[in-house]
Amino acid sequence: MWVKKLLFVFLVTGFIQTAYADQSLTIYSPDGNIQLGILHRTDGSIAYQVFYKGKTVIATSGLGMKFKSPDVSLTKFDVPAVDSSVADETWKPVWGETSSIRNNYKQLVLKLADRSGSGIQLQIIFRVFNDGVGFRYSFPPQSKLNHFIIANELTQFAVTGDHKTFWIPGDYDTNEFKYNTTVLSQVDASSSAMSQEIAAKTFFDKNAVQTPLMMKSADGLYINIHEAALVNYPAMNLVIDKSSFILQAHLVPDAVGNKAYLQTPAVTPWRTIIVSDKATEILASKLILNLNEPSKVADPSWIKPHKMVGVWWELHVGKSSWDYAATQSGSTLVAHGRHGATTANVKKYIDFASKNGIEGVLVEGWNVGWEDWFGQWKEDVFDFVTPYPDFDVKELQQYAASKGVKIIMHHETSASVTNYERWMDTAYRFMKNYGYDAVKTGYVGRIIPRGEHHDGQWMVKHYERVMKKTASYKIMLDAHEPVRPTGLHRTYPNFLACEAARGNEFNAWSEGNPPEHETILAFTRLMGGPMDYTPGLFRIKLNQFDSTKKEQVHTTLCKQLALYVTMYSPLQMAADLPENYEAKMDAFQFIKDVAVDWDDTKILEAEPGDYVISARKAKGKETWFLGAMTDEQPRNFTTSLSFLATDKKYVATIYRDADNADWKNNPEAYVIEKFLVDSKTMLKLKLAPGGGTAVSLAPATAEEAKHIKKIK
Amino acid sequence: MWVKKLLFVFLVTGFIQTAYADQSLTIYSPDGNIQLGILHRTDGSIAYQVFYKGKTVIATSGLGMKFKSPDVSLTKFDVPAVDSSVADETWKPVWGETSSIRNNYKQLVLKLADRSGSGIQLQIIFRVFNDGVGFRYSFPPQSKLNHFIIANELTQFAVTGDHKTFWIPGDYDTNEFKYNTTVLSQVDASSSAMSQEIAAKTFFDKNAVQTPLMMKSADGLYINIHEAALVNYPAMNLVIDKSSFILQAHLVPDAVGNKAYLQTPAVTPWRTIIVSDKATEILASKLILNLNEPSKVADPSWIKPHKMVGVWWELHVGKSSWDYAATQSGSTLVAHGRHGATTANVKKYIDFASKNGIEGVLVEGWNVGWEDWFGQWKEDVFDFVTPYPDFDVKELQQYAASKGVKIIMHHETSASVTNYERWMDTAYRFMKNYGYDAVKTGYVGRIIPRGEHHDGQWMVKHYERVMKKTASYKIMLDAHEPVRPTGLHRTYPNFLACEAARGNEFNAWSEGNPPEHETILAFTRLMGGPMDYTPGLFRIKLNQFDSTKKEQVHTTLCKQLALYVTMYSPLQMAADLPENYEAKMDAFQFIKDVAVDWDDTKILEAEPGDYVISARKAKGKETWFLGAMTDEQPRNFTTSLSFLATDKKYVATIYRDADNADWKNNPEAYVIEKFLVDSKTMLKLKLAPGGGTAVSLAPATAEEAKHIKKIK
Repeated sequence: MWVKKLLFVFLVTGFIQTAYADQSLTIYSPDGNIQLGILHRTDGSIAYQVFYKGKTVIATSGLGMKFKSPDVSLTKFDVPAVDSSVADETWKPVWGETSSIRNNYKQLVLKLADRSGSGIQLQIIFRVFNDGVGFRYSFPPQSKLNHFIIANELTQFAVTGDHKTFWIPGDYDTNEFKYNTTVLSQVDASSSAMSQEIAAKTFFDKNAVQTPLMMKSADGLYINIHEAALVNYPAMNLVIDKSSFILQAHLVPDAVGNKAYLQTPAVTPWRTIIVSDKATEILASKLILNLNEPSKVADPSWIKPHKMVGVWWELHVGKSSWDYAATQSGSTLVAHGRHGATTANVKKYIDFASKNGIEGVLVEGWNVGWEDWFGQWKEDVFDFVTPYPDFDVKELQQYAASKGVKIIMHHETSASVTNYERWMDTAYRFMKNYGYDAVKTGYVGRIIPRGEHHDGQWMVKHYERVMKKTASYKIMLDAHEPVRPTGLHRTYPNFLACEAARGNEFNAWSEGNPPEHETILAFTRLMGGPMDYTPGLFRIKLNQFDSTKKEQVHTTLCKQLALYVTMYSPLQMAADLPENYEAKMDAFQFIKDVAVDWDDTKILEAEPGDYVISARKAKGKETWFLGAMTDEQPRNFTTSLSFLATDKKYVATIYRDADNADWKNNPEAYVIEKFLVDSKTMLKLKLAPGGGTAVSLAPATAEEAKHIKKIK
Repeated sequence: MWVKKLLFVFLVTGFIQTAYADQSLTIYSPDGNIQLGILHRTDGSIAYQVFYKGKTVIATSGLGMKFKSPDVSLTKFDVPAVDSSVADETWKPVWGETSSIRNNYKQLVLKLADRSGSGIQLQIIFRVFNDGVGFRYSFPPQSKLNHFIIANELTQFAVTGDHKTFWIPGDYDTNEFKYNTTVLSQVDASSSAMSQEIAAKTFFDKNAVQTPLMMKSADGLYINIHEAALVNYPAMNLVIDKSSFILQAHLVPDAVGNKAYLQTPAVTPWRTIIVSDKATEILASKLILNLNEPSKVADPSWIKPHKMVGVWWELHVGKSSWDYAATQSGSTLVAHGRHGATTANVKKYIDFASKNGIEGVLVEGWNVGWEDWFGQWKEDVFDFVTPYPDFDVKELQQYAASKGVKIIMHHETSASVTNYERWMDTAYRFMKNYGYDAVKTGYVGRIIPRGEHHDGQWMVKHYERVMKKTASYKIMLDAHEPVRPTGLHRTYPNFLACEAARGNEFNAWSEGNPPEHETILAFTRLMGGPMDYTPGLFRIKLNQFDSTKKEQVHTTLCKQLALYVTMYSPLQMAADLPENYEAKMDAFQFIKDVAVDWDDTKILEAEPGDYVISARKAKGKETWFLGAMTDEQPRNFTTSLSFLATDKKYVATIYRDADNADWKNNPEAYVIEKFLVDSKTMLKLKLAPGGGTAVSLAPATAEEAKHIKKIK
């Protein structure tokens, strides 16, 4: 990394002189568009401001910390020194949306000494990028501070008005809410938090929202607030002051009401503000990844982005069940005959995966315990090594190996994390013995240790322990119901994806996800990292499984295809049942073809809550894939394919909504067309209500160039 | 076991008829001395009473349960059935005070149906022994109750007056208090709980005391209240109503205030009332053991009662230290030169043990982490597998093996139990790899999971998990700072001993244990199981280690010897330093000789708070050992040796306080005498203030019978 000491020494010197008047300091992003202002008031308080192209993004906002132990509020400071530097490096992620990422920022380190007499020293480290600002608190080793307990973090984000906001309620345990779109002053987390279909949720303030928080200002700025590198610290919610529009950090407490137990040297996560006047640039930002630590996996050769099918959707739609016996407690297992994870059924999925080049088969409900796993705060639930009698681990290991397919392990913890931690080593050894190298974890329900929360420090440490321990076993990880991601997949690239939001599964048994859902997810949840959203549902109306079933998926079939491109993840499920794909193999071809790792990504069009169009170039190949999705509005776009190589013709295979398609009334109607295109093509996209388009763009062979019709 | 259906069917039939008046039922102990009365009032409430030889022990006392979930109070019942039976069996403990134990009781099972409309059924099971009464609540499998949460147990023990009571304050986290002796109405747990030297304590009620609670009534009854088989449930404290003398059960809560999470079938621990008009019979009671489940260790051949020395007392008196580097945090270990657990020092202990037939050498402070282990609620403290650089695990394994000695592992958890549970399997595998087959655990500090308590259900389950898991690895267990024992060493005989009270160590660095301490411990803490009290201190005045040290042990040297007999444990430490023993090898001979497992035990004289004299016959041998101890009062006894075989002469080696000995002013003065004795001998014992006498009684050889003087 190229790091240079900055030359505004003069200004810095002025800043640190004993202040008889407020002192301020300014630093600009490398491109000059973003300006960070630091204010040191005569009373010792420190504040910051952020501007974008001259517009205020964050007005004067307070910084500080309140400790429980030692009992001290860090709000008034002397500033004995300020350090500054510039960094510019380019690094290569193990996998990602682009094959290399530039990390270019100016850094300012405020070295602060508490004025209250505690003798405590801390730093606030600011990094100003072209796409936003990150800052964190740092507590270096020092004689006056060793162990300490955080009571409250006093960080503020003062936005400049009653912005349009895409939000879910603040909560200590879940992020599986539907998104709301209101101005800040209309946020009401209490009514929204009533969602009945979420197993464990802990409401705390009607004005609280979660991050990533996406806002749009009246003067056209897109502002995203989140955090990066959430390690050894609780997650941050934001509480809105509806008169001042100050968003106040609110950390998730532990079982006794404390926020974090730290020991010097310690740092908080980075608080991130991504800003642009173009929505597409928000989606293209790599700021959060850049603020995370480089990979700790020395040899990542075993980490492989992949697709999977699985004994999964059939469980959610009620065709089969996780449990083997009657859904009740008791030691005797009497099969009820509807068990999904049978040897025979898994073989069916293996066969389908093998035939279609799908690498993985997820199997849920394979292990004993599902008769009495849910909702009782029960500690000894699963053991992660005892299969049901109709699931033959050895036979399936051999069968999968013979077909070149990997079975993916499922560890539902029932949120009994003390129990899972006791079993983890044994469970991972079991996996390796039986040829599994990926695991999907689950944390449904109230956490044990009782009183802890999904998003508190103890669980944040647990999720990281799982990342580390799975890495040590060379196991890839997909976590469900964890804390929202903050870019830790850079540090632990075996952490392929997580849920941490309202996934496609909600369409199976609740009011579901409205058509706008995915267009908001891209700007919120996905800012922190890839999501295992489980796209690819072909049977949209679920009464086809069961005539009494009223639920449906709230997209067209083609939008399900588009999600493989618009919702980036190195782990993608083809979530529907093999028989539903076999009925529409022409459409399934896109799922077979689409890549899961990329050299390059272009965000072509985007507006939160409305639409996203992205194009991505498959890693190491000349093939591109384009996805376009809309909310409940039909939309037409004309999209330049200028990202294509200028010297090539491409065959565009276009999977589009039929002209009469509609997510509600005619969701499965699709048209597949092939045309010759090139970098000068202006591609016309017509998205149905709740619809989408998926396009694969492969260099044309000479034969194809001759016979396939040029696009109009 | 011989079990017979009792014949009071007629009376039972009367009891369960629909009640227009209070109904009562009576059951007697096999010897007729104890009478249990059950009352079913017309309002549905159930109460019990206990009488001993016609005197009231427990007056009318309520029974019941309050659940948090489902939200129901179980206080009014119908009684659809009553079952009764008699049992008489004799069983052999793996080790113990006697080689066989008779379990003889009459049992009454009240089958109750909640009257409040919940449909919940439960049972209260009473067992009446010749030495007391035990009862428990039982929740059989049923359609109206599966998972449930206990809010409060409504059990009462109404004693009949303002009894003299030997008590320590009720607490959720510690039992290491000094004992108080007052009448019930004078109990003040708030002032007593202020002991500064205890790392984690949680006071909750000034009228609360712990069990085993020892009382003596004005009419001469000795009454001991405790519990047996504390499994999957929190420990019970007792809150005194000072006007009615009703003792109300108070369960230790969890992090969110609940008491216990249960699922049918479920039972509570047994509530035990041991009663006699002879104090000696309290000490001889096997009621608590009889109420525990038989051994779950199928092959206990590897479980061996034993003695140990250790790198331990030198740590407590400050001669050396647990930590290797400066006592502070930081990653660099720079030796300070006072580390106790060095390879060379451990070899010294191994040599001493080997030379003197001591089987074990405990080593504390062998593993990295002691620089920053205490008092910070820190989670990642020790890893249990990383030795300090000056502790050579392999070399010591070989050296100990060559000397026929076993090193005993030490696992201080710092009460970070989540951390220990993550490490347990790895730590036990490490032990077995390096030849360790016994572990001493420690739980100093506040529990993690934060908000849980040492004596709550979560920790009770942890301690049992450790018993089970160590058993599965064939590891013997000695737990320090656990919940008070309740006879579980019957079920898990690898659980040799525990601390769970104020041990000898307090004499090293606090005001210490007053001379009466051990005479109370026998009637309180030891009722639940063996204690690792660490007797055998020969250097009584600790200024011999360090001239500035004002602390001292509050006994004479001879009382330290007597403790090996009066304080039963299958694990006994010779706690002092080898050099202190080597200076007095004539007195150390008793420690070498004394057994740790017994065929028979006679409690010869006893009064709580005053004195205990016991004699025990070594397992499989003709040798007896006698121990006598007193409080601060000098005492003379004349004790019959009628327990000796009538056809033999014995050599009595008597280790007694010198005539001018005194715990305070002349504690180390002792006299050793040998006499010929037999079963007709009336042995005169003269105990100094804070003193004691230890006697070994070995069958005399012909030569000895000729030359050793007959006792006068």
